[in-house]
Amino acid sequence: TDNYRITLLPGDGIGPEIMAVAVDVLKVVGKRFGINFEFQTALIGGAAIDETGEPLPVATLDACRNSDAVLLAAIGGYKWDSLPSNLRPEAGLLGLRAGLELFANLRPAKILPQLIDASTLKREVVEGVDIMVVRELTGGIYFGKPKGIFTSETGEKRGVNTMVYSESEIERIGRVAFETSKKRGGKLCSVDKANVLDVSQLWREGITKLSAEYPDIELSHLYVDNAAMQLVRSPKQFDTIVTGNLFGDILSDAAAMLTGSIGMLPSASLGASGPGVFEPVHGSAPDIAGQDKANPLAQVLSAAMMLRYALNQPTAADAVEDAVLEVLQQGYRTGDIMSTGMKLVGCRAMGDALIHI
Amino acid sequence: TDNYRITLLPGDGIGPEIMAVAVDVLKVVGKRFGINFEFQTALIGGAAIDETGEPLPVATLDACRNSDAVLLAAIGGYKWDSLPSNLRPEAGLLGLRAGLELFANLRPAKILPQLIDASTLKREVVEGVDIMVVRELTGGIYFGKPKGIFTSETGEKRGVNTMVYSESEIERIGRVAFETSKKRGGKLCSVDKANVLDVSQLWREGITKLSAEYPDIELSHLYVDNAAMQLVRSPKQFDTIVTGNLFGDILSDAAAMLTGSIGMLPSASLGASGPGVFEPVHGSAPDIAGQDKANPLAQVLSAAMMLRYALNQPTAADAVEDAVLEVLQQGYRTGDIMSTGMKLVGCRAMGDALIHI
Ligand SMILES: CC(C)[C@H](C(=O)O)[C@@H](O)C(=O)O
Ligand SMILES: CC(C)[C@H](C(=O)O)[C@@H](O)C(=O)O
Repeated sequence: TDNYRITLLPGDGIGPEIMAVAVDVLKVVGKRFGINFEFQTALIGGAAIDETGEPLPVATLDACRNSDAVLLAAIGGYKWDSLPSNLRPEAGLLGLRAGLELFANLRPAKILPQLIDASTLKREVVEGVDIMVVRELTGGIYFGKPKGIFTSETGEKRGVNTMVYSESEIERIGRVAFETSKKRGGKLCSVDKANVLDVSQLWREGITKLSAEYPDIELSHLYVDNAAMQLVRSPKQFDTIVTGNLFGDILSDAAAMLTGSIGMLPSASLGASGPGVFEPVHGSAPDIAGQDKANPLAQVLSAAMMLRYALNQPTAADAVEDAVLEVLQQGYRTGDIMSTGMKLVGCRAMGDALIHI
Repeated sequence: TDNYRITLLPGDGIGPEIMAVAVDVLKVVGKRFGINFEFQTALIGGAAIDETGEPLPVATLDACRNSDAVLLAAIGGYKWDSLPSNLRPEAGLLGLRAGLELFANLRPAKILPQLIDASTLKREVVEGVDIMVVRELTGGIYFGKPKGIFTSETGEKRGVNTMVYSESEIERIGRVAFETSKKRGGKLCSVDKANVLDVSQLWREGITKLSAEYPDIELSHLYVDNAAMQLVRSPKQFDTIVTGNLFGDILSDAAAMLTGSIGMLPSASLGASGPGVFEPVHGSAPDIAGQDKANPLAQVLSAAMMLRYALNQPTAADAVEDAVLEVLQQGYRTGDIMSTGMKLVGCRAMGDALIHI
C-alpha cells in the first residue's frame, strides 16, 4: 500500500463539517485502492487566532511542510473582521501560500449537466463550459512592497500597495499554464491590463516569449475588463486562462459563479516542490455553520484534486469524482443547489450517500 | 436661447460614424428646445497620432478646456497596438482624464425591456436591473508612482505599478457616490479588497466615515471578488456601486455585459469644475469601422447624459432618451442587438429613425 501523510486544516465556519465528509470519503477510497492516509489536523484562521493568538501558528506551517499534501476547508468569519489585517484569518491563508511557495493556483469552473439550471445564465450560453483559471498566487499586489498606510507631510494619509512581477515569476506561472492547457483543450488566454499597466506589459512579453516553446498551444491575450465581459458574454470561448494574483482572484470567482453552484468547485495551489494545498473555492459561510446545511462536495472534489495532482492516484481521483456525479444523478441536493423534484439532504447525509456509492 | 460650446472628439474606428448621428440628434433637439450648440471637432487617439504624432495634442486639451462639455466617441485600434504605451491611443484618453481632472466616472448599466433577450442571463435574473457604477478615474493604480519596468542588480526585469489613494481622493469620489445614490435607490455598495490591501482599508475607512453625513443612504461593503460574483449571481441587489479606478474598470464592464447590449451604454466623466466628458462604454470596433454597421445609440445616450449632467437641460435629455426607447419600440435594430422579427438597419438609418421621432 501507498502511504501518505495529509495535514487537515478545517479552519472556520462550515470548515469542520465539510472536512469530516471529505475525510470519510478518503478513508473509503483508501481502503478500496490500497492507499493508506495518515491524517493530522492543525489550526488555521480564526480557529487558530482563538486558540493561539495568531492565524498561522508555526506548528501548523511545520505540520504542512512535513506532509505529502494539505487539505484545507475554509477560513474567516464576522467574528474576526475587525482585527488588524495581520492578525485576521486571511493573513493565515496568505502566510500559508507564501510559506509553502504555492505560486500556482488552479481553479476549474466546469458546468455539471446535473446542475446546469442552477446557473443564472441561459442554458445555451453555459452548456459545456469547462474553464481552468491558472492564477499566480505568491506575487503581484498581494505581496508587493512598498505597502501600508503612510502619512504625508501635510498630515494626510495615503494607502499604498504595489503590483510587481519579475520575469522569472511570470515565466514559472506561464509554464504551469502552458502545461495545463496542453492537457486540456490546447487554448490559453492570458489576461492583463497591458494598455495601462507597465507590470502587465512585462507580463504579456514574458508569456509571449514562452509561447515559442509551446507551438501547439493557441495563445491569446485579453485585457482584464474585456475578460470579465467575455466571461459573461460567451464563456465557452475559454479553455485555460492565466493571469496574476489580483485579476485571478476576481476572474476565477466570476467564472465560478457562471456555474451557479460555487458549493461544487475545488481548487489546487501548487509550488515548485513541497506539498500542495487543496481547498474549495467557496468561503466559510459562517451564517450556516454548525447547522448541517453545508454542501461538502467542493471539499470532496478538492480531495479528488489532491489525489490527482499531489498523490498521483488518478484512479482513486476518478472514483471520487464519479461518486460525486452519481449522488447528483441520484437526486441528492444540499440547500444551495436544491431544485424541485430533488432530495434535500444535509451535509452529513450527503457524505453518507457518497460513501455508499 | 441657451448657448453651449461643445468639443467633439470622434477618435477612431466607428467613432466618426456614431458621432455624426449624435450631432444630428443634438441639432434637432437644439431646435426644438431653443438650445444653440457651437460644435468644434478635435483630434484624439489614433487619429491624432496619425496627424500629429501624439495621442492628445495640446490643441485638443485646450479646445476641451474652453468648452462647456466634451462629447467623445471611441479611441484605439490594432493599427496602433505596437507603439510604446505613452504614444498609444489609450494614453490620449488617460491624458484627457488627468488633464481635465475627471475624477468621477458614472457608468449606468440598465436593462431596457425591449432588449432584455439580448442578455446572456435569464430574464428573471436581469429584469429591472438598474445599476450605476461610480468609478474613481484619476487615481489608483492607473496613475500611481513608482511605475515602470526596472532592471534589478541581477539583470532581471521587474514590472511595477502602484495602487495609491489618499484620504481626500477617497472623500471626493465618495461624496459623488453618496449624492448619486441619493438621487437613485438610496443604496450604496462600496467595493474594495480590504482583506488584503492596505489601500483598500483606507478606502473602506474613508467611505465609512463619510456615511455619517448620509444617514439615509444604506451603505454596504463587498470585496471585489465577491462583487464580481454577486453581479453574476443576483445583479438586482445593486443600486449604486462606488469603487476605485481598476476595480471600476473591471466591474463596470461586467455590469455592462449583463445587459447584453453594450452598444447601448453611455458614460459620464466629471471633475470638480470644468467640462465633463461624455462617451459610450463600448470601444472603437475597428473590425466594423466605415461599414455603416455600428450602433450609434450609446453615443446618442452619451449626448443625453451631457444634456442632463453638464448643460442642465433635463427636458432635452428626456426627449433624447425617449426617442431612443421609441426607435427600439418601433423595432429598429443594428446588427449587435438584432433579433428575429425586428428591422435591421445601419448606423445612418438608425440616426434617421431617431430624428424623425
Ligand atoms: C480570503 C482571501 C485572502 C482570498 C484571496 O483574495 O486570495 C480568497 O478570496 C481566495 O480567492 O482564495
Ligand atoms: C482604454 C482603457 C485605457 C480604458 C480604461 O482602462 O480606463 C477603458 O477600458 C475604459 O474603461 O474606459
